[in-house]
Amino acid sequence: MKTDLLIVLSDVEGLFDSPPGSDDAKLIDIFYPGDQQSVTFGTKSRVGMGGMESKVKAALWALQGGTSVVIANGTHPKVSGHVITDIVEGKKVGTFFSEVKPAGPTVEQQGEMARSGGRTLATLEPEQRAEIIHHLADLLTDQRDEILSANKKDLEEAEGRLAAPLLKRLSLSTSKLNSLAIGLRQIAASSQDSVGRVLRRTRIAKNLELEQVTVPIGVLLVIFESRPDCLPQVGALAIASGNGLLLKGGKEAAHSNRILHLLTQEALSIHGVKEAVQLVNTREEVEDLCRLDKMIDLIIPRGSSQLVRDIQKAAKGIPVMGHSEGICHMYVDAEASVDKASRLVRDSKCEYPAACNALETLLIHRDLLRTPLFDQIIDMLRVEQVKIHAGPKFASYLTFSPSEVKSLRTEYGDLELCIEVVDSVQEAIGHIHKYGSSHTDVIVTENEKTAEFFLQHVDSACVFWNASTRFSDGYRFGLGAEVGISTSRIHARGPVGLEGLLTTKWLLRGEDHVVSDFSEHGTLKYLHESLPVPQRNTN
Amino acid sequence: MKTDLLIVLSDVEGLFDSPPGSDDAKLIDIFYPGDQQSVTFGTKSRVGMGGMESKVKAALWALQGGTSVVIANGTHPKVSGHVITDIVEGKKVGTFFSEVKPAGPTVEQQGEMARSGGRTLATLEPEQRAEIIHHLADLLTDQRDEILSANKKDLEEAEGRLAAPLLKRLSLSTSKLNSLAIGLRQIAASSQDSVGRVLRRTRIAKNLELEQVTVPIGVLLVIFESRPDCLPQVGALAIASGNGLLLKGGKEAAHSNRILHLLTQEALSIHGVKEAVQLVNTREEVEDLCRLDKMIDLIIPRGSSQLVRDIQKAAKGIPVMGHSEGICHMYVDAEASVDKASRLVRDSKCEYPAACNALETLLIHRDLLRTPLFDQIIDMLRVEQVKIHAGPKFASYLTFSPSEVKSLRTEYGDLELCIEVVDSVQEAIGHIHKYGSSHTDVIVTENEKTAEFFLQHVDSACVFWNASTRFSDGYRFGLGAEVGISTSRIHARGPVGLEGLLTTKWLLRGEDHVVSDFSEHGTLKYLHESLPVPQRNTN
Repeated sequence: MKTDLLIVLSDVEGLFDSPPGSDDAKLIDIFYPGDQQSVTFGTKSRVGMGGMESKVKAALWALQGGTSVVIANGTHPKVSGHVITDIVEGKKVGTFFSEVKPAGPTVEQQGEMARSGGRTLATLEPEQRAEIIHHLADLLTDQRDEILSANKKDLEEAEGRLAAPLLKRLSLSTSKLNSLAIGLRQIAASSQDSVGRVLRRTRIAKNLELEQVTVPIGVLLVIFESRPDCLPQVGALAIASGNGLLLKGGKEAAHSNRILHLLTQEALSIHGVKEAVQLVNTREEVEDLCRLDKMIDLIIPRGSSQLVRDIQKAAKGIPVMGHSEGICHMYVDAEASVDKASRLVRDSKCEYPAACNALETLLIHRDLLRTPLFDQIIDMLRVEQVKIHAGPKFASYLTFSPSEVKSLRTEYGDLELCIEVVDSVQEAIGHIHKYGSSHTDVIVTENEKTAEFFLQHVDSACVFWNASTRFSDGYRFGLGAEVGISTSRIHARGPVGLEGLLTTKWLLRGEDHVVSDFSEHGTLKYLHESLPVPQRNTN
Repeated sequence: MKTDLLIVLSDVEGLFDSPPGSDDAKLIDIFYPGDQQSVTFGTKSRVGMGGMESKVKAALWALQGGTSVVIANGTHPKVSGHVITDIVEGKKVGTFFSEVKPAGPTVEQQGEMARSGGRTLATLEPEQRAEIIHHLADLLTDQRDEILSANKKDLEEAEGRLAAPLLKRLSLSTSKLNSLAIGLRQIAASSQDSVGRVLRRTRIAKNLELEQVTVPIGVLLVIFESRPDCLPQVGALAIASGNGLLLKGGKEAAHSNRILHLLTQEALSIHGVKEAVQLVNTREEVEDLCRLDKMIDLIIPRGSSQLVRDIQKAAKGIPVMGHSEGICHMYVDAEASVDKASRLVRDSKCEYPAACNALETLLIHRDLLRTPLFDQIIDMLRVEQVKIHAGPKFASYLTFSPSEVKSLRTEYGDLELCIEVVDSVQEAIGHIHKYGSSHTDVIVTENEKTAEFFLQHVDSACVFWNASTRFSDGYRFGLGAEVGISTSRIHARGPVGLEGLLTTKWLLRGEDHVVSDFSEHGTLKYLHESLPVPQRNTN
């Protein structure tokens, strides 16, 4: 044919390993001529599968002649209207015929291994999971030389291609590995009480007892950029919570990730659950992974806001835990203390401006303009070299104002701060609801009534009174290992500890209880009696 | 022009009420010539907005000549490649120009009213929310005649167009209204302890105390079919949990829904929060509502599995709470008691086969074939007129077998049951994981060790031992008002009570605490001391 690519459009998604519609039928992403015996063609159907068998024959013939082949569905105009452009762009559509069989499992196989490995992990004793994590911590220090030499390869390949701050995030060192190991041991400690904790016990009837217990969510997909130290950390969190894990790291850290993943599996294998943590091949596109809603229960992106936003967009029906923006506010009330306000603003804005819990917008009560308090804050900001952007109202009050903000909805992530004026605590709350990202918002005041009004009415994950925005953090909250900060309103909100990686199941133990005995004319009545629950060790 | 429709494709989404990119810019769905003064055209931009102004002029001119106009984005080939077919099909794309201005607010305006009404509702005292629900319960019985006459209109219009079971679900009666009122009073009772409950208290440092409290999720969208009694029930659940609510009912119940919604708003107005519950116009498409991810925090479909599946598919980035399937299993172990097994199978399958928690697949240990236990179950099923479908292994063991199942993954929802044979509890668990829907699965055995193995290893929302699948229900679990049953793995799992409509926020009260004081060389240390939490009244 002398063409590069043959696209065969059919009325099914592609080639399945058994007749489509049967219970076990799975779409084959990539078909290798040698795999032919693993496919069962339906023989009874005159139109359907017979047609597919001849398409496959044609495809194999074309493949022999050096033409690549894709069989895909061409009959869903709404869904796959761009099936041809998608195929040409190399997206995972239909079945691709290839001469060369790559080594290693497919991502679907990895998802299944993570699921079944995770299920076994969840049934281990808490001490065994902690042991795995301790062993991984040991390996990180024992195998330091190998890790650092793999990391060196990544750094060499990245040299000149990555900016300095990215290279810094990519690079590992003995001290980084040591503190990573310390962090892992903390995760091991906090894991003792995670899976299998009883949250609620109810006597439904005599000898019929209900229990709600914590269990792992299932399979997590964690997508992270550059920082290879993410891998053992996230691995330990998944192990501690009994979850299966698919890890997708950046290409730039491939060598480092490979060795760190091998060590994680080595640690897992002491209790026979090596496969619970899988490193996804760097060739897999994030977008394709985000479509595996049957395999993945929760996606956790670890990286820039842009990464989080992209993943939230790409995730089809899979929940994403994280936050894309941290537009934190501090409202300085008319009754604020001068010294406290300045101290709190400095810590919130200047201590580490790149953090998501750093201050971005300062709301000042109008009565404070041209008071010593105001001057003190502005002087402090000048000393700290913070660039000020004026909100429209603030600008209108000043004779000479700093440049006006482009948007009141900006996360600077740097030594820049938007200042706006409000007339009341109500107006401050309105501003926060309109322009905020429901992350962390603070009131500075000496008036307890105003403070409580603010705490009750601001609809954000974290609402503080006379405390720095920077406290919004799992470690500082005392949650132990931090999974991240979530601005989503369901499941977990705010700083998330190991608990965010758990769900619950209901266990009911009876004798031979049936609901018909509890009907209007039945012999039994629901007791619904609360039973004591073992107290949790929260320290 | 003598055309019916003019489509103007631009490089922006349509007409905005202020220059796109500015903080407050909103896309106008439908533009009426009289509204022209409400739009601010950018004047500075030479290409962008000037261009839009002239497009609008052209659109208005065409509209006067009797041609409908849509201005939409034609430059996103991936997203809106079908922009023209979408427009022709009447989908909500870009800005539609219309002569006639419909009465009532747009769905976006309703979303905002629900958000702000809900926020006020959440700050009421629990007693006030309970009072609203009690008042609604009173109205349901006091205004019975009006409700029933509206319902009669719906029934008359549906006559001959709806099947008998649907008509039955559509119809209201005095007794239905009375039991609805009783249900509402129960919701009022269980609402006392929902919003503002303290879940966790931690002393982070001296005079720095952290509190995690329950708060409403925000704005819920509940989509329901035929049954108008859903409206006050769901309304009461939202009120009890302090959430704003958008209700989308079926066209067939329009008259009933309208009066029930008016009564709900009448009840809400006793505390000035009338707008917290909004009834969405029947013309709005479910698909369009599912796209409003900035307005809606959680979607709850109430209806058929098909409805749930459609909504799960359509919801773009908004979580959906519910379950589309209930493929519940009962595994009868080799060490099961004969009488218990038969009793449990009958209750699970026959008591109410249309329920999602009814039994669909019976797994029998191979050793039980041709034993009295097996015969007793089969005889019972015959008496109850249950149609049996044989799994492939079961069929292979029988000389004369019932028809083989088409799929082991079937929810019959009727007096039909699949029977399959397994060799061990492990195989039963494998079968459940492969073909189940993680809803409710049961083991029948006298061996406690086997039972606990099953309880621990089956990865479903509800796992029971010697109890009917039918106990899987919020009321039977003692959760009070039931929101639904969720098979999702995050947020809420299994039967969901009012708690499923709540999230949490973190309140931190300090003096002037900054994180830099807690740094390595700082003056303060984290205490992370657990403080006692007021005990919950769970009865």
